[in-house]
Amino acid sequence: MLPRNVAERLDQGGIPKWRKDSTILFGQIEAKGDCGLFKSDKSSIKANAKRWDHFFSEEAQRRKPSSIKAAARAASEPGMISLGAGAPSAAYFPFEAVHVNIANPPGFSGAPEGSESILHMAKYDFEPNSSEYSLDVALNYGQGSGAAQMLRFVTEHTELMHSPPYADWGCCMTVGSTSAWDSTLRMFCEKGDYIIVEKYTFASALETAWSLGINALPVGMDAQGLIPDALDKELSSWEESKRKARKPFLLYMVPTGQNPTGATQSLERRKAIYAVAQKHGLYIVEDEPYYYLQLPAFRAKEPSGETQGCGLVPSYLSLDVDGRVLRMDSLSKVLAPGSRTGWVTASQQVIEKFVRQNETSSQHPSGFSQVIIFKLLNHHWGHLGFFKWLENIRAEYMWRRDAFVQACVNFLPEGIAHFVPSEAGMFQWIEIDWKSHPLYKTGAGHQKIQQTIFDSAVQKKVFLVPGTCFWSASELPEDRMFFRATYASASQEDLVEAARRFGDALKDEFQ
Amino acid sequence: MLPRNVAERLDQGGIPKWRKDSTILFGQIEAKGDCGLFKSDKSSIKANAKRWDHFFSEEAQRRKPSSIKAAARAASEPGMISLGAGAPSAAYFPFEAVHVNIANPPGFSGAPEGSESILHMAKYDFEPNSSEYSLDVALNYGQGSGAAQMLRFVTEHTELMHSPPYADWGCCMTVGSTSAWDSTLRMFCEKGDYIIVEKYTFASALETAWSLGINALPVGMDAQGLIPDALDKELSSWEESKRKARKPFLLYMVPTGQNPTGATQSLERRKAIYAVAQKHGLYIVEDEPYYYLQLPAFRAKEPSGETQGCGLVPSYLSLDVDGRVLRMDSLSKVLAPGSRTGWVTASQQVIEKFVRQNETSSQHPSGFSQVIIFKLLNHHWGHLGFFKWLENIRAEYMWRRDAFVQACVNFLPEGIAHFVPSEAGMFQWIEIDWKSHPLYKTGAGHQKIQQTIFDSAVQKKVFLVPGTCFWSASELPEDRMFFRATYASASQEDLVEAARRFGDALKDEFQ
Repeated sequence: MLPRNVAERLDQGGIPKWRKDSTILFGQIEAKGDCGLFKSDKSSIKANAKRWDHFFSEEAQRRKPSSIKAAARAASEPGMISLGAGAPSAAYFPFEAVHVNIANPPGFSGAPEGSESILHMAKYDFEPNSSEYSLDVALNYGQGSGAAQMLRFVTEHTELMHSPPYADWGCCMTVGSTSAWDSTLRMFCEKGDYIIVEKYTFASALETAWSLGINALPVGMDAQGLIPDALDKELSSWEESKRKARKPFLLYMVPTGQNPTGATQSLERRKAIYAVAQKHGLYIVEDEPYYYLQLPAFRAKEPSGETQGCGLVPSYLSLDVDGRVLRMDSLSKVLAPGSRTGWVTASQQVIEKFVRQNETSSQHPSGFSQVIIFKLLNHHWGHLGFFKWLENIRAEYMWRRDAFVQACVNFLPEGIAHFVPSEAGMFQWIEIDWKSHPLYKTGAGHQKIQQTIFDSAVQKKVFLVPGTCFWSASELPEDRMFFRATYASASQEDLVEAARRFGDALKDEFQ
Repeated sequence: MLPRNVAERLDQGGIPKWRKDSTILFGQIEAKGDCGLFKSDKSSIKANAKRWDHFFSEEAQRRKPSSIKAAARAASEPGMISLGAGAPSAAYFPFEAVHVNIANPPGFSGAPEGSESILHMAKYDFEPNSSEYSLDVALNYGQGSGAAQMLRFVTEHTELMHSPPYADWGCCMTVGSTSAWDSTLRMFCEKGDYIIVEKYTFASALETAWSLGINALPVGMDAQGLIPDALDKELSSWEESKRKARKPFLLYMVPTGQNPTGATQSLERRKAIYAVAQKHGLYIVEDEPYYYLQLPAFRAKEPSGETQGCGLVPSYLSLDVDGRVLRMDSLSKVLAPGSRTGWVTASQQVIEKFVRQNETSSQHPSGFSQVIIFKLLNHHWGHLGFFKWLENIRAEYMWRRDAFVQACVNFLPEGIAHFVPSEAGMFQWIEIDWKSHPLYKTGAGHQKIQQTIFDSAVQKKVFLVPGTCFWSASELPEDRMFFRATYASASQEDLVEAARRFGDALKDEFQ
C-alpha cells in the first residue's frame, strides 16, 4: 500500500532528517504552526501554485489577521511579562494526566493478539523529541491551524503519500471534513452560485450547499464515477444569461469509494478530469474519507485475505501541478469519527483562509483529541506504524465487502438487482430494475415504486437508503433506481441476513 | 454562590427525581437528545417563548432536517438490521479505554491537598445510572445537539442556575462560544446588517462580524457596561434611509467581567437594558465566559480571602420572560479552553436552528471532550461538586485580581493612570490621561501617543493590549485612552513586576 519510495525514505531515517532542521519550540502555548517548517526541502525547487484570488468570496476577501495577535508579536521577546492574551493558567485545569489504552491488532508491532499498549500524557511533561505535546499546552487555546505537533505529523504524512508537485502547499487541521466543506463553500461561493457535483453524491454535502443558497450542477457518472466528457459538455454549454448564474468553477468529488455509489476513479479517469478542470479553470475539492479503504477486486467464493497486492490510486493532490486541488482528509473512518479531527491540504493562499476562518469559528480540534492522536500517531505508531494500521483497517473492510457482496450474489434475485462490487469504502450501490415492478404497468412512477420497495424491506426488517436521498438534480430521476447499503458496521451474520431479507423483499415485490 | 433554593433542591434529591422520569436510553449511538426530557416539570406551566421567524436569515430559513435521518426513523424498530448510516464499527477504534487523573483542590470533596482521583471510561462499559456514556458511543458519530448525556447535565445545570421564566427553552452543545457566535451571526444576519455592541468589545466577536460584512453599531458604556439610555437613543434615532440598513435588532453583550473593560452590569442595569430590548423588539446575545468569575469588591491591603459573601448577578436568561435571550456558556475559563466544549440556551425555535447548523459544520464537540467532561461533571463531581469547583476557581481569580490591582495602586502614577478594580473576569481596564502626555502639546494624536506608550512598555518588557484593538466604531477614538491587562495567568510575582514596569514606562513617558 505504501507509495513507491516511501518505505525507502522512512528506512533512511528521512523523517528525523527533515525534523532536525525544524527549530520549532513545541513546549509553549500556541507554538508556531507553519507547514514550511515541516516539509522536506524537495518542495522548494518546484514552482508555486496558481493564485485563486478571483475565486474567493467576499467573506474570504474580508478576512484579516487578528489585530491583537499582531500587537502580541512584540510580546514574544525573552523576559517579557505578557498581560495580553486572556488564556487561563493551566494550574486551573482539573485534568492532571490522561492515559489511553491502545489495541495492538494481530501482527501489528509484533504484539500478541488482544494485547494493549498505554499512552501517557500529563501537564508539564514536555521533553524535546520524546514528549513534545504536554497536557497543559494541549488543553489551552491553540492556533487556528491546529496544534503545531499535529500539523507536523499530517504535513509529513501528506508529503510521504502524495508529494504534491508544486512548492507552496500546506495543511491546516480541521474539526472534520463536514466542517471543512462548510468552510470551503463560504470561502469560494456566493449565494446563487452553482457548484459541480456527481449526479449522485454525499447527501450532507448537498444539504450544506443548499442551506447557503448554492445550487448543484449534476454531472453524469458511470462505474468509475464522474465522466470527464460529460463535465466538459456541461461547462462548454453553460449560458450565464439562461442559468442566471456565473459559470461554475468549484468541482466537488469523492473520487475513491464514492458515497453513495462506491465508485472509484482510476488514474486515467483522474487525469482526464484534471485536464477538463485545467481547460475550464476549475478548482477541485477532493473529499477522501475512504481513500485508505481501497480493496482488491471482489472474487466470488474465493476471498484471498490479501490486501498487499492492491496499491492505492494516486490522489488528485499528487497530480496537481497547478495547485488547483483542495484535499480533505479525515480520521473518522480510520481512527474514530468522534475524534472530530481531520485536515485539509492546498496551496498556502487557500490554507491561510482556512486558518483565518477557524480563528473565528471552531478555532481548532479539541485538545484532548489532538494530544491523544498525536501521542498515538507520532510517538506510539510513527509513520510506518500508521501505514500498518491503515493496512489492518483495510483488511477488515475487505472481509466485510466480500461477505456482503457474496450474500448479494447468493440472495438477490438475478435480473431484478444489479451491482458492481465496490472496490473501496463502505458502500455497495444496488440498482433495481424498477420497470419490471408490477406497479409500473399500472402507471406508478419512480418515487412510488421506490417507496414500495423500501417499505417492503423495512417490513422484512432491513434498512437500506433509497438512492434519491443522494440525487443532486432538482427534478427526481425517472430513469434508474438504486439503493445504498453500507457494510461498515453490521456483524458478518447480519450482513448475510440483511442481503437475504432484502432479496426476499425484492422477490415478494417483483413476484 | 448558589442561587436561592438550589442547595435545597439538590438536597431533596431533586436531580434524581427529575431523572427518574427520563426514559432515554443512553447506551446507543446518537441517543436522542431532546432537552424536554431533561427539564423538571416546573417549566411546563409557563408560557412559551415569542417566535423569531422574522429575524432568521435566509440561510437559517433554508435549513431542513436531513432526508436520510428522516428515512432512518424507520430503522429504529427492534430486530431491524440497518445498512443505513455510514458509521464505522467501534471495533475498529484503536482507543480501548481512557483514564483521567483529576486534581482534588484543598477542601474539595474532603480530599487532602494535592490528591487526585481517576476517571475511567472504556468501550462497551455502559451501565444505566452508573456508567451512562461508553467510549464506543462517545467516539462514534453523534447528534448535532451534542451527546444526550452532556445535554442532560447542562440542561439541569441551566435550570438550577437560571430557571428560565418561559416554558420551551432548551440547550445545544457547541464547540465553544467563538463558534456559537459565528453560527448566531449566520442565523440572524444578512450582509450589510448592523449589530449592536458595547463601544469597546471582544475583538474576535467584531472580527467575526466584519468578515461576514456585518457592521457594528457601538453604544456608550460606563463603569457598569452598556448604558440603557444610550441604547434607546441610538435605536430611536435610527434612520434606515440614511444608514442604508434596516434597524438593528441583535444586541451582543458580555454582561459580566466584560472583555476588555472588566465591567459587570448590576441587576438594575440588566433590567433596564431588557426593558429597552422589549421596547425595540431586540434579540439579546449574552456571552458569559466569565459569569462564574464574579469577585467581591477589591479592598486595598486587606484581602479577605472570602468569596462566599459574593452572590452572582442574575443572568439575562433568568429575566427572560419573552424568550428573547440567547445565552452562550463556555467551559473554557472554568475547566479548560482546549476542551472546545460549551453550550447555548435559548427558545427551542432557535435551538433547533443550532442543531441543524451543527449537523452540516462542526457536528458536535469531540467525543473525547464530551465523555471526559461528562464523567467529571456528572459522575465524579455531580452538580454540587461542580458548583464547589467554580467557587474554587473564583477564589483563585480573587487573589490574582487583588495582587494585580494592589500593585497598580502601588506603582501606577496617580493622575496619569486611572482604574476601577474589576469585580469579575480576568481583565483590568486602565485609563491613561493621554492629554497630559508631552507629545500632546506638539499636536500628536491618540494613535501616535498610544503607540508611544505601548512601545515604551514593551521596552520595559511588559505587554498590555492597546484599547483601540477593542474599539467597535469605524473612526478611531480621540477622546479617552485605555490599555487592557489580564491577570489570568502570570505568576503573583510577575503580576506585581508587570505593574511596576508599566508604572515605570508611564513615569518615563509622562516625565
